[in-house]
Amino acid sequence: MTTRQSQCWILTGYPEGLPDATTFRLESRPLPEPAAGEVSLEALYLSVDPYMRGRMSPVKSYVAPLQPGDVIAGAAVARVTESKHPDFVAGDLVLAPLGWRTAGVLAGASLQKLALPVERASLALGALGMPGLTAYFGLLDVGRPKPGETVLVSGAAGAVGSLVGQIARLMGCRVVGVAGSEEKVRWLTEELGFHAALNYKAHEDLREALAPLCPDGVDVYFDNVGGAVSDAALGLINLRARLVICGQIAQYNAKNPPRGPRPFATLLVRRARAEGFIVFDFKERFPEAQRRLSTWVDDGRLRVRETVIEGFENVPKAFLGLFTGQNTGKMVAKL
Amino acid sequence: MTTRQSQCWILTGYPEGLPDATTFRLESRPLPEPAAGEVSLEALYLSVDPYMRGRMSPVKSYVAPLQPGDVIAGAAVARVTESKHPDFVAGDLVLAPLGWRTAGVLAGASLQKLALPVERASLALGALGMPGLTAYFGLLDVGRPKPGETVLVSGAAGAVGSLVGQIARLMGCRVVGVAGSEEKVRWLTEELGFHAALNYKAHEDLREALAPLCPDGVDVYFDNVGGAVSDAALGLINLRARLVICGQIAQYNAKNPPRGPRPFATLLVRRARAEGFIVFDFKERFPEAQRRLSTWVDDGRLRVRETVIEGFENVPKAFLGLFTGQNTGKMVAKL
Repeated sequence: MTTRQSQCWILTGYPEGLPDATTFRLESRPLPEPAAGEVSLEALYLSVDPYMRGRMSPVKSYVAPLQPGDVIAGAAVARVTESKHPDFVAGDLVLAPLGWRTAGVLAGASLQKLALPVERASLALGALGMPGLTAYFGLLDVGRPKPGETVLVSGAAGAVGSLVGQIARLMGCRVVGVAGSEEKVRWLTEELGFHAALNYKAHEDLREALAPLCPDGVDVYFDNVGGAVSDAALGLINLRARLVICGQIAQYNAKNPPRGPRPFATLLVRRARAEGFIVFDFKERFPEAQRRLSTWVDDGRLRVRETVIEGFENVPKAFLGLFTGQNTGKMVAKL
Repeated sequence: MTTRQSQCWILTGYPEGLPDATTFRLESRPLPEPAAGEVSLEALYLSVDPYMRGRMSPVKSYVAPLQPGDVIAGAAVARVTESKHPDFVAGDLVLAPLGWRTAGVLAGASLQKLALPVERASLALGALGMPGLTAYFGLLDVGRPKPGETVLVSGAAGAVGSLVGQIARLMGCRVVGVAGSEEKVRWLTEELGFHAALNYKAHEDLREALAPLCPDGVDVYFDNVGGAVSDAALGLINLRARLVICGQIAQYNAKNPPRGPRPFATLLVRRARAEGFIVFDFKERFPEAQRRLSTWVDDGRLRVRETVIEGFENVPKAFLGLFTGQNTGKMVAKL
């Protein structure tokens, strides 16, 4: 009997600065037979997300660091090939913490059955999954926008940002996005209903460029990027503004602690609040959010785009593309 | 009939960087007779506070800028010399928005009668006044400390910080202070009941020096100073820490926007909140706070020290001393 194998992407070591092809190594690992309570899976879609960069560092964060030699961890949409768990049968589509692997054997308890058809199953990694929940709770619970307020979103064409802006519009806000290309800007304003958007790469003085797009200032700044875009945003915030610190992708690959203008004096003068969060803080309310997100996607109020990279061999390339803005909407790898 | 005069300290212009003696000019101005509803006052104690620096700048803040030629604005304890307002009689002690003047005529409606004896009247500028209220609401409502948590206070020997630490101790917290001299450190730990305190001037690596004083990390950081002390504090915050941004005195005289390590990534990883506030946001609850502060001062649970500078001619010197840490507790000028 041949032992079945899984292809895996392995962390070779902790990258200094921007990861590259040498950060990852392809390996074939034997697959065990599923024991009682376990399920065999084949991966259909693998998620690549900016937060994964944090796990490729030895510094303790809200997720434990990976060890060199570990398979890169992450969510996947997978198909059950064999089940020894009563809740699953072969052919089921599931959301699984499979990591960057072509196949795996996991405890049934770690899986979530998907009610989506296979051609839409990748939504479970995006608008109906972690990025969607992040946008939902970050905007509504941390940012607490009121109708008529201005919501400014950085990383606006990304998996989270593109949803934040659309949800803010549904809440009756003026929505302004910052993104990294003219094409993304057009997508935000012409298809997603953002009231205005800015290509940050086309401007020297970002604050000056943003100011006319936010004539009433900024009440909620939803920050996915940090750095110079956030410096500009801070210059426009109103009294009692809320800064939702969701991501800082501009800094994830910094070799030295990034420096910039100190923001606390602005928080003081504007009596504003900056707050970091992660989506798992809202775990008990995931069903509520998933119901609403699902309704909005189904009836077209939330528009979703994905950037799909084909082939398991290209998973690291998809991941690295996040840091150069290769994605519009959620980036996924399709096997 | 001789027109009575008031001595006044006038803003000569907006200082660049640290104000100095040339920022202020002494002038004699005539005093009008009080009209109906007005009260004549002689100043007993004038307040000098770090926030006043903000009014000596043309930049819009939470207080309108003073204009060159204006009397420096601020609170004072004054005695009524003549009253044309039914609520006041000659001899009454009042809290008055007199500014840096020896005497003045103000609308009775702008005054608050003090129930304090004259020898304790300056408390109305400190523990029972704006700094006390700032400490009270900033700590309890913005910082929300829980018993057993660690509260770290910068500017701990100042008017606000010395109260914040003591209130935090009353709430059952571990209290750690950062101040600018060994003498202040001794005062905090030996007289005010701080569990630990650090002289920031005696250490190169503040974070390394602070860490052993905060063995369980920092849950609430009450920030009066900003700059390097805050950088160190940020390195020690726990999950869901609250950073109360009350003052940034280390930056008030900066000629260029101060730069430093970017803090948002730490807020994100720790899911922490940084929030600016000013005491007037809590105006409707001042009576509650003043009752409690007054009880704590009377029964000795809050210890109060003042740094008293004598003489109207020395008011600017008292103010400038705030930026070099000349005060322990509240700085007041006694006329």
